[in-house]
Amino acid sequence: MSLDPHHPKAEAGPGRGFPVSEFESRLARAQSAMADLGVDGLFLTTEPEIRYFTGFLSRFWLSPTRPWFLLVPATGKPVAVVPSIGRECFDATWLDDVRSWESPRPEDEGVSLLASTIGEVLGHNARIGVPQGPETHLRMPVGDFHRLRDMLRGCEFVDASGLISSLRMIKSAAEIEKIAHACTMVSDVFEAFPDQLRMGMSEIEIFRRFKIACLERGIDDVDYLVGGAGPGGYMDIISPPSPRGARAGDILMLDTGAVFDGYFCDFDRNFAFGPVSSAAEKAYGVLLDAAQAGLEATRPGSTCAEIYHAMQRVLDKDFPGGSGVGRMGHGLGMQLTEWPSIMATDETPVQAGMVLTLEPSVDLGGGRMMVHEENLVLTEDGPVLLTRPAPKSLPLITV
Amino acid sequence: MSLDPHHPKAEAGPGRGFPVSEFESRLARAQSAMADLGVDGLFLTTEPEIRYFTGFLSRFWLSPTRPWFLLVPATGKPVAVVPSIGRECFDATWLDDVRSWESPRPEDEGVSLLASTIGEVLGHNARIGVPQGPETHLRMPVGDFHRLRDMLRGCEFVDASGLISSLRMIKSAAEIEKIAHACTMVSDVFEAFPDQLRMGMSEIEIFRRFKIACLERGIDDVDYLVGGAGPGGYMDIISPPSPRGARAGDILMLDTGAVFDGYFCDFDRNFAFGPVSSAAEKAYGVLLDAAQAGLEATRPGSTCAEIYHAMQRVLDKDFPGGSGVGRMGHGLGMQLTEWPSIMATDETPVQAGMVLTLEPSVDLGGGRMMVHEENLVLTEDGPVLLTRPAPKSLPLITV
Repeated sequence: MSLDPHHPKAEAGPGRGFPVSEFESRLARAQSAMADLGVDGLFLTTEPEIRYFTGFLSRFWLSPTRPWFLLVPATGKPVAVVPSIGRECFDATWLDDVRSWESPRPEDEGVSLLASTIGEVLGHNARIGVPQGPETHLRMPVGDFHRLRDMLRGCEFVDASGLISSLRMIKSAAEIEKIAHACTMVSDVFEAFPDQLRMGMSEIEIFRRFKIACLERGIDDVDYLVGGAGPGGYMDIISPPSPRGARAGDILMLDTGAVFDGYFCDFDRNFAFGPVSSAAEKAYGVLLDAAQAGLEATRPGSTCAEIYHAMQRVLDKDFPGGSGVGRMGHGLGMQLTEWPSIMATDETPVQAGMVLTLEPSVDLGGGRMMVHEENLVLTEDGPVLLTRPAPKSLPLITV
Repeated sequence: MSLDPHHPKAEAGPGRGFPVSEFESRLARAQSAMADLGVDGLFLTTEPEIRYFTGFLSRFWLSPTRPWFLLVPATGKPVAVVPSIGRECFDATWLDDVRSWESPRPEDEGVSLLASTIGEVLGHNARIGVPQGPETHLRMPVGDFHRLRDMLRGCEFVDASGLISSLRMIKSAAEIEKIAHACTMVSDVFEAFPDQLRMGMSEIEIFRRFKIACLERGIDDVDYLVGGAGPGGYMDIISPPSPRGARAGDILMLDTGAVFDGYFCDFDRNFAFGPVSSAAEKAYGVLLDAAQAGLEATRPGSTCAEIYHAMQRVLDKDFPGGSGVGRMGHGLGMQLTEWPSIMATDETPVQAGMVLTLEPSVDLGGGRMMVHEENLVLTEDGPVLLTRPAPKSLPLITV
């Protein structure tokens, strides 16, 4: 109990934010990779990348009005070029050089300040790494990006997607702690959740109760919650909740990306309303077996393709053919989904420090499917589940 | 009460989704504007734009792995080019032509299918509108966009930002109903919220309680909640909550973008812990007066700049100088912030059907500020507040 009302009892779980040493270590790894790639700096515009190097965490990214820019030079600290509304927050980070313009200013939304800062910090003939490859986007008007290139004709912009993914795929101990805490809290919520479910309850109501339960348990935001219920399985796994009431024979799936201090968990659980058909129980068992096979295949040095095939071999016996999801797991961390992809064509070797989901899915025919998902961290000694494993048989709602 | 447990009691408020006629009307307006701009089609990649023309609503956009593409031709219905995981959902929209590729496929993430579809639907020498201007971005790897341009050398890509904003700025009656419903629910939550606040409560706890209260009231997601508490005012308005406990003399501000069926409200409320300093009470009163002046200036045909100056004139008497926010309101709807901006340099004339925030802010010195925000819809007869107006004096927390 807190005695001083001005200093409330500290939260359970890992502390918020990171020590400066975390950012120094990220920068050192980045600068080493930049030397390998032969670039003079990185130009970053997206939330996770800017947060990765600065610690700037804000929901304000939801507003598309203002771009935010970060330069990571080959030596020295990152330099931020941010709208005036973010000045205060960036001055509070570990950066020394923060520049800002009065925004909104659509006729020059930071572009001229950015161009002069690039010239000064990286040089007028710099080779600049920009994420341009798979799973990336530029969070600025593409017209402004082309204008910037025209203003910096001596500079060359090269793809830095691989550099960024290779950095962010390997999580630090402090990052893993945050993801693990989110997984633990949501495991608790899933475990207790059958008590809140009732026959006839609408998906909208079920989703609402789930979000409230997560918040009450200590989650910051339930940014991602999808799923559905249907007889023996569900039609798709990305829909919002419907007003339809759950009925006997339905399988309900909830898949959540819940956030603690800017880090996601991403896993699902299935529930059965009323008696479970043997087909649904069988599919559930096969999915659990596939995830287990995936877990056992996840060793330092194995490839994503190998992990995928370990799961697919289990599924193929009873459920040949794909479900349309396209992969059976992925990285996670600051984003709901990150590199690598657990799929047949991804030859990325998994390494200690990676946090991954295993997400086998089966096509049940008639447009119905079932999906199961767990989260793990890979250590030098092998995988460690971050989620409490799903129950061996489908939790049953009978009232 | 619902008698049939399979058909739960309908939600209060407007129904979910839109009738097909809504999309037909949006398409007709778009095609008329496309004729004016002289383009053969629009190429869209972002969530609000794709939802605007298709109704596709999903939290899955949070995953950056897969791009989604929509073509809006000068005649005929939009054509979707989407990853396989979205096939089922898009087949359920009003579109007739939905194409998909097995995704993830980083080596060709839909680009070749997109290029061939553009060639077929818009032609190989088409003039294609793409949002490239202020407040836009391309949600696809910029490397893939450049590859697409190379594959379609006969096509010309021109900026369609103005076309998109001119469409989306004017809301339909059905859209306004959803925003109004979000505003009403959050007004209820704000009104009852002082009962939940206690001296010494941490910002983290306050934020958590507010989110739960919104969900319990019927809000789908509290995507945006920022704010803070500090003696007589707060330091910035985009920070996440801190563990600091509220103390006597603090002003607490909560600014929320809460969502119902994909539409935002966006407004804030201020609360005082313990006795209010006369300076804080004065700032609060001036902010309310400024918002009122802004409301009175919001008439069909007045410009954003005029509305801004109407507010600034009130503020200038007591609080000359800016607060760093850069504007005093904006459009809202499918996004937390949309065009236009209520600022000195935005000469956009406001029109019936626009939904706007009025958001005056003052610099209190010492890095502290205060902000007040209301939401309105402009009708032919003048503005109508969608938010229940803030109380005339600061709600007081004394326990």
